[in-house]
Amino acid sequence: MEFHDLLIGLIIILLAAKLGGELMERLGQTAVLGELLAGVVIGPGVFALVRETEVLHALAELGVLILLFEVGLESDLTRLLKAGPQAVVVAMVGVVVPFAAGYGLMHALGHPGLVAVFVGATLTATSVGVTARVLTDLGQLQDPAASVVLGAAVVDDILGLLTLAVITGIAATGQVSLGGIAFLGAKSVVFLVVAVLIALRRAPGLVGLIARLQSRGALVVSALVFALAAAAAAEWIGLAAIIGAFAAGLILSRTEPHARIDDRIKPVADLLVPVFFVMVGMKVDLSKLNPFAEGAQLWLALALAVVAIGSKLVAGLAVYHPGTRRWPVGVGMVPRGEVGLIFAGAGLAAAVVAPDLYSALVLMVMITTFVAPAWLKTLYRPAVAMAIH
Amino acid sequence: MEFHDLLIGLIIILLAAKLGGELMERLGQTAVLGELLAGVVIGPGVFALVRETEVLHALAELGVLILLFEVGLESDLTRLLKAGPQAVVVAMVGVVVPFAAGYGLMHALGHPGLVAVFVGATLTATSVGVTARVLTDLGQLQDPAASVVLGAAVVDDILGLLTLAVITGIAATGQVSLGGIAFLGAKSVVFLVVAVLIALRRAPGLVGLIARLQSRGALVVSALVFALAAAAAAEWIGLAAIIGAFAAGLILSRTEPHARIDDRIKPVADLLVPVFFVMVGMKVDLSKLNPFAEGAQLWLALALAVVAIGSKLVAGLAVYHPGTRRWPVGVGMVPRGEVGLIFAGAGLAAAVVAPDLYSALVLMVMITTFVAPAWLKTLYRPAVAMAIH
Repeated sequence: MEFHDLLIGLIIILLAAKLGGELMERLGQTAVLGELLAGVVIGPGVFALVRETEVLHALAELGVLILLFEVGLESDLTRLLKAGPQAVVVAMVGVVVPFAAGYGLMHALGHPGLVAVFVGATLTATSVGVTARVLTDLGQLQDPAASVVLGAAVVDDILGLLTLAVITGIAATGQVSLGGIAFLGAKSVVFLVVAVLIALRRAPGLVGLIARLQSRGALVVSALVFALAAAAAAEWIGLAAIIGAFAAGLILSRTEPHARIDDRIKPVADLLVPVFFVMVGMKVDLSKLNPFAEGAQLWLALALAVVAIGSKLVAGLAVYHPGTRRWPVGVGMVPRGEVGLIFAGAGLAAAVVAPDLYSALVLMVMITTFVAPAWLKTLYRPAVAMAIH
Repeated sequence: MEFHDLLIGLIIILLAAKLGGELMERLGQTAVLGELLAGVVIGPGVFALVRETEVLHALAELGVLILLFEVGLESDLTRLLKAGPQAVVVAMVGVVVPFAAGYGLMHALGHPGLVAVFVGATLTATSVGVTARVLTDLGQLQDPAASVVLGAAVVDDILGLLTLAVITGIAATGQVSLGGIAFLGAKSVVFLVVAVLIALRRAPGLVGLIARLQSRGALVVSALVFALAAAAAAEWIGLAAIIGAFAAGLILSRTEPHARIDDRIKPVADLLVPVFFVMVGMKVDLSKLNPFAEGAQLWLALALAVVAIGSKLVAGLAVYHPGTRRWPVGVGMVPRGEVGLIFAGAGLAAAVVAPDLYSALVLMVMITTFVAPAWLKTLYRPAVAMAIH
């Protein structure tokens, strides 16, 4: 009976994703926006057609993991490394300014310091998943601005983990273990450096092994096992799994059969990636966002969204290289996506963020997540049109 | 943390499947045998590396569903229909003879009537999954004997469901609802007839719709949604989900882009199908099969296995068409696989089959499942060699 529910859930999610994606593409938008909206429609707030189960959640997590693996596979490591210093600067600005703005807003509204810290931290998040997906949909992964945004989003994910460790530490014990934070930071840097070194030196040897396998599907299974192993390793040292998957993609992008791996991994991504974005959309409960309800935080949510968008656009101004456009970088940093939800959820779990404020934060996260794809599409329209003609 | 466990579980399962499959192929066997053995090795009886979780179970179920979808997609409906009457005769013999033999053996050993009925019923099972996979591995889906075996296995799955309904009814209430059984039988026949009619008349129209979709991955997602929907429909009327997936594949095999669908679904199958077979292997707990332990049923298990194999080989004798080989049909009916485990499990759940006897039945199921791939491979070796040269 449970398997029957899974079948029905998957059918609804995939159908909704395709219908939403198709509709948005015909309206000149990106498919991911349609998938997010499809999630809202089938989610608890509107038709409540699908319930988030453990299996669907796992499929969604595998989906975003495979998305980042695919993005890594299609990325150019040399270009990404060249964009590195700039990406770090953008990521730093994209953490400091939103934190200060969020903290300042909540402080001005008279909230306690710890609440203001959690809200500020939630504003620092960047959803590398949403941005990477939009750039993939637009075929713009090779754009210099895309390298900066992707690099900055990855750095941001690491900074975000450090921030999360700090604020949950403060919420739980009232103090910060500086040694623990430094250790987490050091592990993250070592992980990325090791991944880059493997990519530069050892990747062909890895593939030589795989090429000797004869059984059917050896390439796709080996590639995915490699991605899963890198994701597990990243999780093990305290990083996000998607960073590991991205690193695995980068490593394999330097190998001879990378195009064939990409071709074989694409159908798997086509099936699982939409599950992730539909389920992000499903987290919006419109029925809880009634602006006339008692204790409604709609205006707070809108104020937070304005601050969230404005403060990330500032990160775009940190672009100093003349050949790189600033707007796509700033807008690419805007979506908070699943990372923002994790921050807000941590605040709720720590009983620092009240349920009302949590709803406002979720709405802010969603506004930033829904605004970015359409905005990026507009920014890239001339380039896309040029690429076609 | 839970997601981390899933990653580790998947890595171990996929690695074990590839290593086992690769090893068996190099030894001249089929990959599926290696995957089954890999499951035994990483399962609870030997190294206990992976625990069966809800998510892994769901992935395995999706895997066998996609396998049958793929087999349907690569099958020739016309040939299958032509083999139809012969397949029905083979399936009938393959149910009646094993049931009588199993019942007779248990009766002769002095077991009560209801126990003998359950054991007889377990012997009637045919694992369409294992046989279909072996024929796919050998590239022999187009062989006339393969059409008979596949058709008979599908009919057997339906007869098996009817048998299961009868015996669980007897075990629960002591009597049989003949009307309910007839209704289930009628629904099954209607389902298959409707599927065949859709395949013959409406398939191109279905695909015309899909061809108009523009977004990325539209083909693979639509095809899989169709397979999932057919599987859900089959489950809904009381049939096995894999029968629905097989019917969906048959329908799409008659459409113009069936080769493209097959190409895009293959990587998904490459990843998920081994998960199913490894997890079938994981159900063997070697530590429980100690022949010197108290109450060990090893000899009973071996006797059951001999009866199980011999009685299914008789089904091969029911082949009357001169161009079709009898041995591959008989051996193709031997593996009990997951279907046999379901029967034995139902007996255990109904408290008719004692734990000791259940272990013996599981061992019998495994012997038949492990013997068939190697045996079929031997029978097809001349044909495979001819196909290569």
